Amino acid sequence: MSVYLAEFLGTAILILLGGGVVAGVTLTKSKAFNGGWIVITFGWGMAVAMAVYTVGTVSGAHLNPAVTLGLASIGDFDWALVPGYMAAQLVGAFTGAVLVYLAYLPHWKETGDPATKLGVFSTAPAVRNPVANIITEVIGTAMLVLGVLGIGANSGHVTQGDVDLSGLFSTGIAPLLVGLLVLAIGLSLGGPTGYAINPARDLGPRLAHAVLPIPGKGSSDWSYAWIPVVAPLIGGVLGAWVWRLTGFGG
Amino acid sequence: MSVYLAEFLGTAILILLGGGVVAGVTLTKSKAFNGGWIVITFGWGMAVAMAVYTVGTVSGAHLNPAVTLGLASIGDFDWALVPGYMAAQLVGAFTGAVLVYLAYLPHWKETGDPATKLGVFSTAPAVRNPVANIITEVIGTAMLVLGVLGIGANSGHVTQGDVDLSGLFSTGIAPLLVGLLVLAIGLSLGGPTGYAINPARDLGPRLAHAVLPIPGKGSSDWSYAWIPVVAPLIGGVLGAWVWRLTGFGG
Amino acid sequence: MSVYLAEFLGTAILILLGGGVVAGVTLTKSKAFNGGWIVITFGWGMAVAMAVYTVGTVSGAHLNPAVTLGLASIGDFDWALVPGYMAAQLVGAFTGAVLVYLAYLPHWKETGDPATKLGVFSTAPAVRNPVANIITEVIGTAMLVLGVLGIGANSGHVTQGDVDLSGLFSTGIAPLLVGLLVLAIGLSLGGPTGYAINPARDLGPRLAHAVLPIPGKGSSDWSYAWIPVVAPLIGGVLGAWVWRLTGFGG
Amino acid sequence: MSVYLAEFLGTAILILLGGGVVAGVTLTKSKAFNGGWIVITFGWGMAVAMAVYTVGTVSGAHLNPAVTLGLASIGDFDWALVPGYMAAQLVGAFTGAVLVYLAYLPHWKETGDPATKLGVFSTAPAVRNPVANIITEVIGTAMLVLGVLGIGANSGHVTQGDVDLSGLFSTGIAPLLVGLLVLAIGLSLGGPTGYAINPARDLGPRLAHAVLPIPGKGSSDWSYAWIPVVAPLIGGVLGAWVWRLTGFGG
Repeated sequence: MSVYLAEFLGTAILILLGGGVVAGVTLTKSKAFNGGWIVITFGWGMAVAMAVYTVGTVSGAHLNPAVTLGLASIGDFDWALVPGYMAAQLVGAFTGAVLVYLAYLPHWKETGDPATKLGVFSTAPAVRNPVANIITEVIGTAMLVLGVLGIGANSGHVTQGDVDLSGLFSTGIAPLLVGLLVLAIGLSLGGPTGYAINPARDLGPRLAHAVLPIPGKGSSDWSYAWIPVVAPLIGGVLGAWVWRLTGFGG
Repeated sequence: MSVYLAEFLGTAILILLGGGVVAGVTLTKSKAFNGGWIVITFGWGMAVAMAVYTVGTVSGAHLNPAVTLGLASIGDFDWALVPGYMAAQLVGAFTGAVLVYLAYLPHWKETGDPATKLGVFSTAPAVRNPVANIITEVIGTAMLVLGVLGIGANSGHVTQGDVDLSGLFSTGIAPLLVGLLVLAIGLSLGGPTGYAINPARDLGPRLAHAVLPIPGKGSSDWSYAWIPVVAPLIGGVLGAWVWRLTGFGG
Repeated sequence: MSVYLAEFLGTAILILLGGGVVAGVTLTKSKAFNGGWIVITFGWGMAVAMAVYTVGTVSGAHLNPAVTLGLASIGDFDWALVPGYMAAQLVGAFTGAVLVYLAYLPHWKETGDPATKLGVFSTAPAVRNPVANIITEVIGTAMLVLGVLGIGANSGHVTQGDVDLSGLFSTGIAPLLVGLLVLAIGLSLGGPTGYAINPARDLGPRLAHAVLPIPGKGSSDWSYAWIPVVAPLIGGVLGAWVWRLTGFGG
Repeated sequence: MSVYLAEFLGTAILILLGGGVVAGVTLTKSKAFNGGWIVITFGWGMAVAMAVYTVGTVSGAHLNPAVTLGLASIGDFDWALVPGYMAAQLVGAFTGAVLVYLAYLPHWKETGDPATKLGVFSTAPAVRNPVANIITEVIGTAMLVLGVLGIGANSGHVTQGDVDLSGLFSTGIAPLLVGLLVLAIGLSLGGPTGYAINPARDLGPRLAHAVLPIPGKGSSDWSYAWIPVVAPLIGGVLGAWVWRLTGFGG
C-alpha cells in the first residue's frame, strides 16, 4: 500500500507546486503576477523535482499515468500495479488542486476572467486544433519518457571497483534531473498546448475545478479534456519504445 | 555553543541575501530594479543554499524556528536545544537585516514608498485576510518541512557495499536541493503572502525595521506580525507529522 | 553502428528542444511568446543536457561536428569515426527540426514575419558583417570545446583509494555541466550571432526550412549559411588546441 | 608556472563570459538586449563556474585577488605565490576584456551612450557615495570568501569508510556551487554597485577600455577605480577572518 500512498502524496505535491505557479503568475493581485514563462517553467520543473525527492525512494515517483504505462509497455514495470498507480496519481492530482485553491483563496474573487481560473487547474491549447494538439502532446510526452529512461540508464553505468555508485546518482541527482527535463520540455514544447504531458495532471485538477466553489468560475472545458489524457498515454508508450528499440538501455 | 553560533551566522547570511534581493528589485535606482519574481525567488533560494553550505555541517542549518519545532515534534531534534536554536535564529535574522540596510545605504532616501521599504524587511499579504493568510503560510511551511525531510530521507538510502555514500549526498548536494525547495515554494506559493514560512525571517527583520534610522520609513505593521510567526510554526509541525505518518522515513 | 544512432538521436533531441524554445518565444500565439533571452538560453542549455543524458553513455554525445573535429585534431577521437559522426549529427539535426515544425504546426500560419520563421531553424547575425560574425562564432565555439575538455579533465582527477569516482562524475553531473556551459555561452556570447557554435545545429535545420511546407516562409538565407558552418569548425579546433597547449589535461 | 597560466586562463574566461553578458544585455542590436537582471546574474554565475571547471584542478581557481589575499591572511595560501597569482589574474582579466571587445565588434558603433560601453568593462555605482559604495563592496566580498570557505569545508567532511569522497565533491559540484554563490551575491547585493567583488575583474577591463579603439567611447572613470580594488581586498580579508574566528573550518 505504501507505493500507492507515495504516488498519491507525490502527485499532490506536484500539482500543489505546479498549479500553484500558474495561480501565482495569472491570478490578480498575486505578488508573482506576470512573472513570465521562466517562472511558470521553473515552477513546474522544481515541482517535479521536489515531488520525486519526497516519495521517489518509495514508489519510484512516476506521478504520471503516461510514465507508468510507458514503463509497463516495455516490461520495466509490473502491469498488476498499473491500475493502483494510476488511481493514486489521479486522486493525488485532485487533492493537490484543492490545496492550490486553498493557498490562493482570496485571489479567485479578485480575478475576472473565467478562463484564467480554469488555466490554474487544466491546460488549454493556444490554437484549438485537435490533430495538432495531439501531435504536440505526443511529442512532448515521448520526450519526457525517453529522457527519464536516459537519465536512469546513465545511473546504471556507474559501477566501479567494489562500489556501485548508481544509488547515489539515482537518489542524489536524478530527481533534480527529471525536474530539469520537465523544465526543458516546458521551455521548448509548452508553447502550443501548455504541456500537460500527464493525464493525471490535467484530469485531476479539471475535476477539482468542476466541484470546487470557485467564485465566478466558468466552464471546465470538457470538450478538450480527452486530448491531454489520450495523447500523453500514446506519447509515453512511443517514447518508451523508441528507447527500447535503440537498445541503449542494455 | 558552536551550534548556536552556526544558527546565528547562517540565519544572518539567509537574511542578508534574502532581504538583499528584495532590496535590489524594489528600491529606487538599484541596478536590479524591477528584476521580477524570478530574481526574487532565485535570490531567496540561493540565499538558503549558501547559508546551509556555510554552517550546515556544524548545526544542521535549520535557520528557521518552524523547522526546529517541526523536527522536535516528531522526535528528530532534541527539545533542550530548541530555545537556543530559535533565539540564535532570531538574532541572526535581525543582524542580517542590519547588513541589508548597510549594503543598500544610499537607496533608502531615493525610495519614496514606505511600504516598499518595509517589504525589504518583512512580508505583507497581497490581500489582507487573516484566515486565508494563515492557510497559505501553513501550506507553504508544511511543504518546506516535508520537502526537507524527503531530501534527508533520500540521502539515508544511499548505502552500498562497504561505503556509506550518504555523507556526500547530505553535504554535497542536499544544501543546494533545500535552496531549490525554497525556490519552488517561492515560485508556486509565494504569490498570496510573500512566503515568510519562517518566523525568524519575518520577525527579526521587522524588529530591525522598527529600530533602524531608515529615512522616510513608515509603520512596521505590527498588526500583521503574528501571522508569519504563528502560521509557519503550525505548518512546520503539520509537515513533520505528515512525513511521520507516511512512514516513508523508515 | 550504435554510436551513429546515438549521435543521430541525441542531435535530434538537441534540435527538437533547442529549435522548440525559439519557436515558443517567437511564434505568434505561443504561450511562451516574448519569454525573453533567459527562456531562450535556458531552453538551449537544458536541450544539450537532456540530449547528453539520453545518449552520452553510448557515443560520448558530441552532437556537434565542431566538437568531433576539435577532439580529433588533438588526438582525443578516432579520425575514422569523424565522417560518420558528422553525418549522423547533420541528419539528426534535420530530423529534430522536422519535429519542431510538427510540434508547432498551427503557429506557422499565425506568424507573419518570414525571418521569424527562419529564426526557429537557423541563426542570423544581429549585424551582418562576415569578418565580425566569424570572430564571434570562433570565440564562442572555442569556449565550448575548451569548457567541455575542462569539465572532462575535472572528472579524470577523481580517483581516490580503491575507488575511481570519475564514472559518477562523468555520467552523473557532467552532462548537466555541459548544458550549463552552453547556457553560459548563450547568455554571454549569443548576442551578436545567436550562437550557432555547431555546424549541424545550423545547417540541418536550414535544410529542413528549405524543404518543409511552411506557410508564408521566405528565403533560407543561404548567403549566410557558410559562416555558422566554417567558423565553429575553426573555433572547435582552436579551443581544443588551447587546451592541449596548456597541458592541463595531463 | 602552470598555476599562473591557470589563473591567467581562468580569469580570461571569467571576464569573456562575465563582460560578455553585460555586453549582450546592454549593447544596441544585441539579441540579448534588455534581457534583464536574471540574465546578467546567471551570466556572471555561470562564467565563474565554467572558469573554475576549466582551471580549478591546476591552481584552485582563485581568479580574484580578494580571494587570494583572504586565503593568505588566514594561512590557507602561500604568501610567496600571492604576487604571481594577482598579476596573472589582472592580465587574464585584461585579456578577457579584449575578447569581449572582439566578440561584440560591430555593436560598439551601434551603441550611443559612452557609459553603457564602459559598463561592459567596469562597474559603476548606482548612487555615487564612496563610503556607502565601499561598505557594499566589503559586504559582498566578505560574503564571497566566507561562502567559498564554507563550500570547501563541506567537502572536507566527506570521508567515510575507506573512501575519501571529498575529491568528488571538490571537483564535481564545488565549482558549480561557487558559481551559484556569485549568482546569489549578484542577485542580492549587486544592486548598489554592480558587484565588482574582485579587483582584477574591475581594473583589468578598465585598462582594456582605456587602450582599446572603441568607437565613441568616453572616460574610463578613473576617479571611481580605486573603490572596486580596495574594498574587495578589505572584504576578502574580513570574510576569511569571520570564517577563521568561528572555528567552523576545524
